[in-house]
Amino acid sequence: MDLLKYHSDFLAYLAEQDFKREPKNLYEPVDYILQLGGKRIRPILTLIAADIFSGNFKKALPAALAVEVFHNFTLVHDDIMDDAPLRRGKQTVHEKWDINTGILSGDAMLILAYQYFENYEPTIFRRLAQLFSKTALEVCDGQQLDVDFETRNDVTIEEYIKMITLKTSVLVGAALKMGAIVAEADEEQAQHLYDYGMNLGIAFQLQDDYLDTFGDPETFGKQVGGDIIENKKTYLYLKSLEVANDSDKEDLISFYNNEEKNIEKKVSQVSAIFERNNIPDFTKQLIESYTNKSFEYIDKLSISDEAKEALRNFGLNLMNRNV
Amino acid sequence: MDLLKYHSDFLAYLAEQDFKREPKNLYEPVDYILQLGGKRIRPILTLIAADIFSGNFKKALPAALAVEVFHNFTLVHDDIMDDAPLRRGKQTVHEKWDINTGILSGDAMLILAYQYFENYEPTIFRRLAQLFSKTALEVCDGQQLDVDFETRNDVTIEEYIKMITLKTSVLVGAALKMGAIVAEADEEQAQHLYDYGMNLGIAFQLQDDYLDTFGDPETFGKQVGGDIIENKKTYLYLKSLEVANDSDKEDLISFYNNEEKNIEKKVSQVSAIFERNNIPDFTKQLIESYTNKSFEYIDKLSISDEAKEALRNFGLNLMNRNV
Repeated sequence: MDLLKYHSDFLAYLAEQDFKREPKNLYEPVDYILQLGGKRIRPILTLIAADIFSGNFKKALPAALAVEVFHNFTLVHDDIMDDAPLRRGKQTVHEKWDINTGILSGDAMLILAYQYFENYEPTIFRRLAQLFSKTALEVCDGQQLDVDFETRNDVTIEEYIKMITLKTSVLVGAALKMGAIVAEADEEQAQHLYDYGMNLGIAFQLQDDYLDTFGDPETFGKQVGGDIIENKKTYLYLKSLEVANDSDKEDLISFYNNEEKNIEKKVSQVSAIFERNNIPDFTKQLIESYTNKSFEYIDKLSISDEAKEALRNFGLNLMNRNV
Repeated sequence: MDLLKYHSDFLAYLAEQDFKREPKNLYEPVDYILQLGGKRIRPILTLIAADIFSGNFKKALPAALAVEVFHNFTLVHDDIMDDAPLRRGKQTVHEKWDINTGILSGDAMLILAYQYFENYEPTIFRRLAQLFSKTALEVCDGQQLDVDFETRNDVTIEEYIKMITLKTSVLVGAALKMGAIVAEADEEQAQHLYDYGMNLGIAFQLQDDYLDTFGDPETFGKQVGGDIIENKKTYLYLKSLEVANDSDKEDLISFYNNEEKNIEKKVSQVSAIFERNNIPDFTKQLIESYTNKSFEYIDKLSISDEAKEALRNFGLNLMNRNV
């Protein structure tokens, strides 16, 4: 399993695609967002899965690209909804063009994603498209829950985990399962891989929440404290409400419901509340718990010990990241 | 061929669907727009085609609904882009809820449309989804061209026909072809039906342009003159620029490029320019020409004379409408 090879072959396959077609106002934004970079974790997972089950990861390149195009479609539409000016340090599509362009180019990307499955024969095509539709709809559900949570003050930790599962983790699971489908693995094996990915995805998102507040500003790509500034009800916030004393709880709720003009003060005081309530430890424990749960599914796979080791290492590397 | 039966069975099938699922802020708008009504021409065409080729139109209900859900998805997103407050006399989705809801519910509808194909076995599923993706992308292309034309002053009639073909007519063709695919008609026959529908769709859109200016205010559902008020570069406008004398041409360009405060004056004077340049006749001739072209494809079909007659009558009825 050669991650760098998957990465470079994926980028080469992406570069082969013709996103410079007409009408150019529709397809230039598609090309732009897909060239912005990113870690390409999801398509690489598709290639890993295909390689494990068939030794032929190249056959999974179209499915891997479908996943990446879909993921970028969600970024384009989510950035409109969040009114986000920047993505990966560059202008978002609706900032560089306009909202209408963002809507329509996003729509085209969703359709383009489905078209990559046309590279496969009917039975595989149907399995891929079916999993893809189910997953894509779950991602929409998750995005809607995320929006709903903004105006709710009674979100539970369970609901939060459900939301990040739908918005983020099911796509990680589906990316892996698609590789297994292309490799014609049986359904049970493919599902174990999905469950590995889904749990790893939850751990990954929780770690994102952790790093957003406690990451190293030197290496963390985004502004540290961004979630606090935007009043995001992440696991850190919800767990604090569960374990903190009344005074800390009141302060926290007040910071999240009133406009605090002094951003630095807000970030440092909320961070301090998190710290004195051991939220970093709670979060690390939960991350570890989901990571371990994901590793349990590796053991259920009928694959070589080497491949199992590789999946475990992939998870460990992802969890030891500081970016 | 019993159009009323198709219509009522389609509505019954639509009513069976569960669009009241959670999260409700995502699916209520889906239910709302699908219940707004409309002529349901596209899904009925799918059922007609299936009936002609197999005698079993019910098998095509999921495909028919996919077409209708997709069509309504385009309405939701187009209404955002056009900033339209009303659709079928009721509030548009983004007006009743908000733009973000319109974007996300629209996305969900595009995915839901694909999911209806899961009612079919792999080979039919693949043919349907492939035609659907191709068509959906063409509709996006058409919408983009429509947007591009707003700011261009050199749009040709040929470009305009291409735009309405992509934005409107390919979906009419595809609706019919999907019915043929479900009925397992051979590709050549299915394609003739597609070409019948596509040409009929162009005629239909040109008639829409005609009725928008010259329709009977008593029976025409929308405000007569709406296209003129919005400076829409329809066939009527573009043909005038081709045949009118310099004075009329200048007036027309001036009306379309300057804010005329007196709306009634603008509509009546532009209409007068159209009339004295015989634009109604030119338009009727072009509508007839596309209708006749569509009928040529009926003759190529290996179906009963009765079915051919029914397709011809469907086209004639559509062209004699005043709504």
